Amino acid sequence: MTDFDEVALSAARDDLLNSARTVLMSAAGEDRDLPEMGVTPMVRHEGAFYIYPSHLSAHVRAMLSAGKAAFLVIEDEASAQNIWARRRMKFDADILEIDRENEKFQPVCDAFATAHGPTMALIRDFTDFHLLKLQPTGGVMVLGFAKAYRLEGPGLRVTSHLRSS
Amino acid sequence: MTDFDEVALSAARDDLLNSARTVLMSAAGEDRDLPEMGVTPMVRHEGAFYIYPSHLSAHVRAMLSAGKAAFLVIEDEASAQNIWARRRMKFDADILEIDRENEKFQPVCDAFATAHGPTMALIRDFTDFHLLKLQPTGGVMVLGFAKAYRLEGPGLRVTSHLRSS
Repeated sequence: MTDFDEVALSAARDDLLNSARTVLMSAAGEDRDLPEMGVTPMVRHEGAFYIYPSHLSAHVRAMLSAGKAAFLVIEDEASAQNIWARRRMKFDADILEIDRENEKFQPVCDAFATAHGPTMALIRDFTDFHLLKLQPTGGVMVLGFAKAYRLEGPGLRVTSHLRSS
Repeated sequence: MTDFDEVALSAARDDLLNSARTVLMSAAGEDRDLPEMGVTPMVRHEGAFYIYPSHLSAHVRAMLSAGKAAFLVIEDEASAQNIWARRRMKFDADILEIDRENEKFQPVCDAFATAHGPTMALIRDFTDFHLLKLQPTGGVMVLGFAKAYRLEGPGLRVTSHLRSS
């Protein structure tokens, strides 16, 4: 008997990604003993993840400096069946900056405006904001107690059941 | 003219702390370039913050090893007036483990059971879980655009308006 059903687990992963609007992030700080944390809206465009945060925040400077960061997508507290087991996925990702002159820049900004409202019109031309493409390298999805699964590669494919997260 | 009203800002801080049930956390990993992230329920007992996570999770092992971590308390996405400016506070904290024999152990476990339901009865005797007291050293509270405030000391006192977070 196994509880590993890749089709159902992939659907659960997509459900979580489609219902969450923001991503939490953490990057190694100048003080290597204490990371920097933050939150920002995320969109998926042509299968890739994008964020558009400002370097006025310490965690964004840390992330730009490191070229990679840890990310967490998590259901709201109010949506959790059990507060001890909020559905979530964490993944590590390399970060690729999309320049303002890149042909992807305007379409992805449009996707942010569609998904996350009129604030994008205000911040679109602010040069302290950076359009960053996340290139996941792997992670873990937790759907409940003893329901942790390994995620692999840029598409976060569900590959195995884990005993710990 | 100033928008710094310590009484109102302290009330906003307490409001955020009282409505959130969990805390996000991040600690420096073995790979110093990539932090470990996680989430866990939190209680306040006699003015102090406590968490009760399991060392089966990599971020908990990292936190126990470092003796300190970065924390984030954040309103639900569904509660946010603007998804670009979720109300939140981040703070760094030293971690003090409360042994199972300590006189505080049972009362704080009772506080978890009261606040977060019957799961505590299940995990209370599991020795992979650790009762940890958070001793904040400082942080930042964000209440909206251009509304970032410095938090200082173990009581997270609101001390000044910041230009960046």
